Amino acid sequence: MNTLYENLGSATGISKMVDDIVEAHLNNPVIRARFLPYLEKPERVAEIKKHTCDFLAAGSGGPETYTGRSMPETHRGMNISEAEYMAVIDDIMGVMEKHGIDESARKDVLAITYALKGEIIHQ
Amino acid sequence: MNTLYENLGSATGISKMVDDIVEAHLNNPVIRARFLPYLEKPERVAEIKKHTCDFLAAGSGGPETYTGRSMPETHRGMNISEAEYMAVIDDIMGVMEKHGIDESARKDVLAITYALKGEIIHQ
Amino acid sequence: MNTLYENLGSATGISKMVDDIVEAHLNNPVIRARFLPYLEKPERVAEIKKHTCDFLAAGSGGPETYTGRSMPETHRGMNISEAEYMAVIDDIMGVMEKHGIDESARKDVLAITYALKGEIIHQ
Amino acid sequence: MNTLYENLGSATGISKMVDDIVEAHLNNPVIRARFLPYLEKPERVAEIKKHTCDFLAAGSGGPETYTGRSMPETHRGMNISEAEYMAVIDDIMGVMEKHGIDESARKDVLAITYALKGEIIHQ
Repeated sequence: MNTLYENLGSATGISKMVDDIVEAHLNNPVIRARFLPYLEKPERVAEIKKHTCDFLAAGSGGPETYTGRSMPETHRGMNISEAEYMAVIDDIMGVMEKHGIDESARKDVLAITYALKGEIIHQ
Repeated sequence: MNTLYENLGSATGISKMVDDIVEAHLNNPVIRARFLPYLEKPERVAEIKKHTCDFLAAGSGGPETYTGRSMPETHRGMNISEAEYMAVIDDIMGVMEKHGIDESARKDVLAITYALKGEIIHQ
Repeated sequence: MNTLYENLGSATGISKMVDDIVEAHLNNPVIRARFLPYLEKPERVAEIKKHTCDFLAAGSGGPETYTGRSMPETHRGMNISEAEYMAVIDDIMGVMEKHGIDESARKDVLAITYALKGEIIHQ
Repeated sequence: MNTLYENLGSATGISKMVDDIVEAHLNNPVIRARFLPYLEKPERVAEIKKHTCDFLAAGSGGPETYTGRSMPETHRGMNISEAEYMAVIDDIMGVMEKHGIDESARKDVLAITYALKGEIIHQ
């Protein structure tokens, strides 16, 4: 049986999806304001993408190591609302579907992001 | 392999969980205001519980028939926010865990409630 | 010195503004969902407008008597969010400006609606 | 007739209120998460207080000059919600009342903060 990492397309598949997720966030009216300042700092966007890829890879059974900050630390001081959290989930789910990720893997990712909710919202 | 209906404890298990979910909603500061007026109308609470049981049963592969209104119709005019939707999910997830529902069935329910989101929020 | 009632245009002025405020609410994406069900019940809209006129008139020093329910009772079970409350204020302020109500009277209305916030939000 | 600046207690009065407002924000569950990271950076808190004092003083007719960033620039990337904005207003109004600021001056401040809303929310 495949690992979730494999079902997400391994490093290459995850990286392509993270590109599209960031793009979706920039077009999502609920959360785009959070990302607009980064447009002037492409190196910061690249760093965020790298951390996100490693986080997803490590969390789905891949060989990568996540070296970024903890979830609460990453979102500290942002006071992310439920509406913003849902917007992120919507973008992730939409991109996974577009990339042909099967329903079982999408369910796994939904469950993982739900489990992380308490470390993301209102930090 | 069991159906989701069986994994949720069939009619009896679902009914007990719906009792606890309504109880949890009444204690959840984010959504309790929506339910307080019903405390004076126990017959309305009984009706809501009945519809919820049938909806869950029918949607999880049970023999029950759901005769209530459609999801958008049920929530029409309520303008339910993302925070309220998340509060409902939290109560459902917490009750399922308390009732010993296994992870796979909880994932299924999370995915079903996520799929229904567009028919619940901001109607 | 004029009363606030007079500065709002007395019964006629208030009534015209209430018409425009309800119209603005129906076009405001944050709150229109709350009002859409009323479109099928014009007599309910007429009643809401009548109560709103009387409430504003009585509260601004006019001779009208408000016979509707109390603020908390009116909003009971609605769980109105801060965003919805702000949308209502925005519509009221915009209509008052459009109707040429002077700054001092608009300030008074803003202060009154702010004072009522606790009886409107999350009831 | 006094200026708003004088009605707010001039530089000394404004400075004392800003201290109390920041304290109130740190105890307000809706927005405290935004301010917690600053607790480790007292020099940053001092800078925010200084800018806030100058902003209020300059905006109320005092001789101070505001040298901080523009409102949209200050809130850029924060995606402040309506609920957070209302929490800030509540803290400001509560502190002004505690400091014995008269109703007319409180109304002026409410109107000013309302006028700034579009430069604060969802930037």
